[in-house]
Amino acid sequence: MQAAFVPQDPDYDSRVRASFAAQAMMTTLHAEIADLAPGRVDIDFPHQDGFTQQHGFTHAGVIATVMDSACGYAAFSLMPDDAAVLTVEYKINLIRPAQSHRYRASGHVVKSGRTLTICQGSTYPIDEPDEPIAIMTGTLMAIRDARIQH
Amino acid sequence: MQAAFVPQDPDYDSRVRASFAAQAMMTTLHAEIADLAPGRVDIDFPHQDGFTQQHGFTHAGVIATVMDSACGYAAFSLMPDDAAVLTVEYKINLIRPAQSHRYRASGHVVKSGRTLTICQGSTYPIDEPDEPIAIMTGTLMAIRDARIQH
Amino acid sequence: MQAAFVPQDPDYDSRVRASFAAQAMMTTLHAEIADLAPGRVDIDFPHQDGFTQQHGFTHAGVIATVMDSACGYAAFSLMPDDAAVLTVEYKINLIRPAQSHRYRASGHVVKSGRTLTICQGSTYPIDEPDEPIAIMTGTLMAIRDARIQH
Amino acid sequence: MQAAFVPQDPDYDSRVRASFAAQAMMTTLHAEIADLAPGRVDIDFPHQDGFTQQHGFTHAGVIATVMDSACGYAAFSLMPDDAAVLTVEYKINLIRPAQSHRYRASGHVVKSGRTLTICQGSTYPIDEPDEPIAIMTGTLMAIRDARIQH
Repeated sequence: MQAAFVPQDPDYDSRVRASFAAQAMMTTLHAEIADLAPGRVDIDFPHQDGFTQQHGFTHAGVIATVMDSACGYAAFSLMPDDAAVLTVEYKINLIRPAQSHRYRASGHVVKSGRTLTICQGSTYPIDEPDEPIAIMTGTLMAIRDARIQH
Repeated sequence: MQAAFVPQDPDYDSRVRASFAAQAMMTTLHAEIADLAPGRVDIDFPHQDGFTQQHGFTHAGVIATVMDSACGYAAFSLMPDDAAVLTVEYKINLIRPAQSHRYRASGHVVKSGRTLTICQGSTYPIDEPDEPIAIMTGTLMAIRDARIQH
Repeated sequence: MQAAFVPQDPDYDSRVRASFAAQAMMTTLHAEIADLAPGRVDIDFPHQDGFTQQHGFTHAGVIATVMDSACGYAAFSLMPDDAAVLTVEYKINLIRPAQSHRYRASGHVVKSGRTLTICQGSTYPIDEPDEPIAIMTGTLMAIRDARIQH
Repeated sequence: MQAAFVPQDPDYDSRVRASFAAQAMMTTLHAEIADLAPGRVDIDFPHQDGFTQQHGFTHAGVIATVMDSACGYAAFSLMPDDAAVLTVEYKINLIRPAQSHRYRASGHVVKSGRTLTICQGSTYPIDEPDEPIAIMTGTLMAIRDARIQH
């Protein structure tokens, strides 16, 4: 269902990595870009004991945060070089317990528009790629105004 | 639209607080229960520099995490004393920039069922309750099995 | 949580009604605007035997269709007079069986932006306003281009 | 990402078709099952002039209705023979204008659980399978009680 995307900005790779590096949250979560292509981003992150829910599993909030970043940077990779990206909304389904030591969140663009980009993502244990623990659909917005606003 | 709810468990308050205290994630985010009633939970949390997105605002992942907890504990407050609560899914809209120093995430039950509970929530700057930065709708599930599963 | 909205277009009422009248789908569903104010629209519609699911209840698709219209026209009422409105996405929770003879779908604006408007809605049996059968959150987009595109 | 599913009910095909035939809404929309396999259902439907939005395109409500059915029957195909299926919630993104004369809505199971099943779907013009006009994620519930309830 997914076509190949041609980035508008030939330097999309360094632009995405610079923005990712500027997110303190990604550093706090020890999240790392594992793969990056036009319209697709994979981010790896570990279980951390300080980021658990009441049964000791990885907190869904961590999974949502990184998967939202994977979707956001997948969208951002196709935007022009003067655009900022904002998440308008996302919906997440938590479909299996998050009991692994390390995960991969993968986001890809479904539809790239001038203003809005639609992405889907999934997160799975790094060694069980066929057993996703969560899936996401999100809407991202390209912002060209100097002052960021919705 | 919201009726008064009668809790099945008279000790709902201490049960909710014990579960909240067991979430390491809430401690990491310095999140605190500000108000708790049957079917309604408010949680306060501060901006932290280690939890920001690329423009220095509070990361949407933090907001989603705490608002999901507010919704989850609103649902949990109405469940019987032998039930665990799991988030099945949620959808969040990010509607204003998160530029405050402190926020309140408020979750309330819309419909309480035997298996599923539907909640809605909003998050706003602590001193601007009429200017929500995000809204959420979520589905929570009561689990009675010893072994937690979806 | 909801502020009073001031319409940009003083003729918002007739503009909304003209667009509603142009939707053949609303005529087919015998849907009627019951109330209309800036940022808020109520639409009434009956059960019809040709629009049922497998147990003979009103089909969720009918409920979603009318509630999406209520949200869309609530958004449209606040847009400038040269704008068209498109639904970007919505999420619906079906929370009670749809067993009534007549329903009201109510949509209101949560946040009105230049490009995007966020709405929430609910649908309930006309004689049971406190027992909603479904709730919705949606994102609507103002389109000013001559040629409609996302 | 999608594994092969083994149906619990060997007569899943006739059970799905019987339930589909009982939905008056599908008849009204001239919707037909085009393909049916364990965990996957395709439904075709035409544009009809009585089911349009204000610009004359196929109404999003029709697309959502049929795609919800495709997801619902994909889930139902994997349920035991004494179960009924209910849609708990879905989220739809409308990503391209619906300007075709005929569409295919395709739904497949992402995760099949004892109580809940998670599905994803897409709808595309029958002659443009790589250009989806809408995508959906939904949660379906198996109901075994004699009296249907959420």
